[in-house]
Amino acid sequence: MKIGLLGHGVVGSGVRKIIDRQETPETEKMEIVRILVKSEAEMTDARMTMNADDILDDPSIDTVCECMGGLEPAHSFVKKAIENGKNVVTSNKKMLASSAEELFALAAEKHVRLQYEATCGGGIPWIHEISHIQRVDDIRSFYGIFNGTSNYILTRMNSENQELEPMIKEAQGLGYAERNPSDDVEGWDVRYKTALSSLAAFHTVVDPDDIPTYGIQNIAMEDIDWCRNNGYTCKLIGSGENHDATVSIFVRPFFLKKEDVFASIPLNYNALECESNTLGKAVFIGQGAGSLPTAHAVVQDLIDISEEKENADAAMNHKPVSAAGYEAVFYIRTKKTALFNPELIERRVGSNSFLTKKVSFMDVKVAVQSVNDEALFLAEVAQ
Amino acid sequence: MKIGLLGHGVVGSGVRKIIDRQETPETEKMEIVRILVKSEAEMTDARMTMNADDILDDPSIDTVCECMGGLEPAHSFVKKAIENGKNVVTSNKKMLASSAEELFALAAEKHVRLQYEATCGGGIPWIHEISHIQRVDDIRSFYGIFNGTSNYILTRMNSENQELEPMIKEAQGLGYAERNPSDDVEGWDVRYKTALSSLAAFHTVVDPDDIPTYGIQNIAMEDIDWCRNNGYTCKLIGSGENHDATVSIFVRPFFLKKEDVFASIPLNYNALECESNTLGKAVFIGQGAGSLPTAHAVVQDLIDISEEKENADAAMNHKPVSAAGYEAVFYIRTKKTALFNPELIERRVGSNSFLTKKVSFMDVKVAVQSVNDEALFLAEVAQ
Repeated sequence: MKIGLLGHGVVGSGVRKIIDRQETPETEKMEIVRILVKSEAEMTDARMTMNADDILDDPSIDTVCECMGGLEPAHSFVKKAIENGKNVVTSNKKMLASSAEELFALAAEKHVRLQYEATCGGGIPWIHEISHIQRVDDIRSFYGIFNGTSNYILTRMNSENQELEPMIKEAQGLGYAERNPSDDVEGWDVRYKTALSSLAAFHTVVDPDDIPTYGIQNIAMEDIDWCRNNGYTCKLIGSGENHDATVSIFVRPFFLKKEDVFASIPLNYNALECESNTLGKAVFIGQGAGSLPTAHAVVQDLIDISEEKENADAAMNHKPVSAAGYEAVFYIRTKKTALFNPELIERRVGSNSFLTKKVSFMDVKVAVQSVNDEALFLAEVAQ
Repeated sequence: MKIGLLGHGVVGSGVRKIIDRQETPETEKMEIVRILVKSEAEMTDARMTMNADDILDDPSIDTVCECMGGLEPAHSFVKKAIENGKNVVTSNKKMLASSAEELFALAAEKHVRLQYEATCGGGIPWIHEISHIQRVDDIRSFYGIFNGTSNYILTRMNSENQELEPMIKEAQGLGYAERNPSDDVEGWDVRYKTALSSLAAFHTVVDPDDIPTYGIQNIAMEDIDWCRNNGYTCKLIGSGENHDATVSIFVRPFFLKKEDVFASIPLNYNALECESNTLGKAVFIGQGAGSLPTAHAVVQDLIDISEEKENADAAMNHKPVSAAGYEAVFYIRTKKTALFNPELIERRVGSNSFLTKKVSFMDVKVAVQSVNDEALFLAEVAQ
């Protein structure tokens, strides 16, 4: 297997290390022949090039690993690789979630593989386990902590009694958060991952923009304090449920009972759960990011391709994302409470915060939109 | 694939249900043609027989599923099935751990498969995930809650402030514990599972009798109280570590810090962790028993065989189990404290209980033996 590696950052350099080491019979069958880097300064190996076409147009390369991140040029490179008959493994959740339908259709047409284990849960074998369970059973729902950066920040806010900003800075100092942390903190990263999990678990293509997404950008110590005083721990949760005609997928902070397993997921770990009829709930916990864990997931995809293990090519379906059927209690803090639909409010719990009655996510979404407060904080509350 | 099913109890009946339903392309390729039951009263299906040879001597049956439990006649039946050239899938940890070397050697000689996913962790894809990770990396160690019954009992003792006996009765009432609960409560069940995990993770055959095993049969509310008052939660933990010339494997109650993920594993769930170089720690949580989850694991093994997925047939090795290299702090309660090696004691924590210094498991084992108190309770204490 001749591999062209696009990108030599955190994930790409990990992939190169694992494959170059050739420590198992499976990795011995692989060779990275070309590596795309961004600058002269990165050209430390004879295989490196700054021209993507050295990889995409090389007929001796059968498989391309895209570990660049971002929408473009990653999307164009992946598209060209598939058009040129190459298998693709990608770790790029944003690019793939945004172009899933186009790229999977193209891959089917060109009879090549498009694999994406590393897009969700870092080293956790999430996509693999979903396919594995599907050999026996359908997946009904998934749920979990999909973002290690925000989990690190929430864990530290809770243990250090510190506001969001200094904890974001700490996460940046440790390399967990980007200079612009909005993808992690505002829930966009989880949105892409839930869209790809819907594809794997339900074979349902969704537009990420349709997924109701609330992040932790407005969380304050008073929210954390209320949480703790009432026996809860706050986590950022993505979840999905499959229905006959719709899927319900959400991203939101969640006040979990503190004895809940998910409440004790520490620091930058991820924890992902899926539920099926025969297996019930199965939970997978691991490092959600990091060079070697994520690279491990990329290499697993490469092994599947080299062993010609076919994906069960269940036909994709399209269903709208619906928030109507999901009922829950929400904690909401806004200085503009007076503008929130009073019929949904159960009781005040702070000067600017209240709990809703058990209401549909749709109703809350509409009420939140009408308040139009950019500083509003919303969380689901476990019952 | 023509399957003969040995045993139609909790697990066997689940296997029959899943395969008879034929809900996936993988299970559609399978057929259960014969089912061994124990009594006339169980003969509710034309496929049922009370004569094992109707399965073991039937040349049209290519694969045998052993879900009987117990040492004999399960062991003889499995041996005969292999000798007759049939693949075997077993959920019987006690039988397999006790005869692993003999049966795997025989299977290799006869070129048939012997699979055992359902022996550890019920529906958790533990053996599968170990093999999956080994495609990229070696497993260094494993750790976890391997027994759902004792976890249920410990969880309930903690939440209900009740002594061991009534909680065993409650577990029996719910069908979690056998009439004779000693395998679950005294740690023997975990011992078999750690022996089989050593086989999967390290390719090391160990004699289960060599594994130092301490159960919860002597735990009292005063131990649970000390735990809670000092920020710990008690769990029954099995673990293993691979070394150059030895393996260290232990089964013992463990006072975990209450914020530890394993401390919040509820009721009859299992949680199993393995550690490898690239992936770091990966944890799998699921129902550790129950008809359909365990049957799911059996069916997964059957699918692997029907798809002719070869196990990586790494040669087995033999290493002694050594307790010498493992150092920890222990909580010990015995009325015969005066007989315990005083050099190992750090401080008294109750009228009959004390904490040791950080000492090797070997030294503690020897000191415990010299005390010779059948009511002694020992637990490792997280540092």
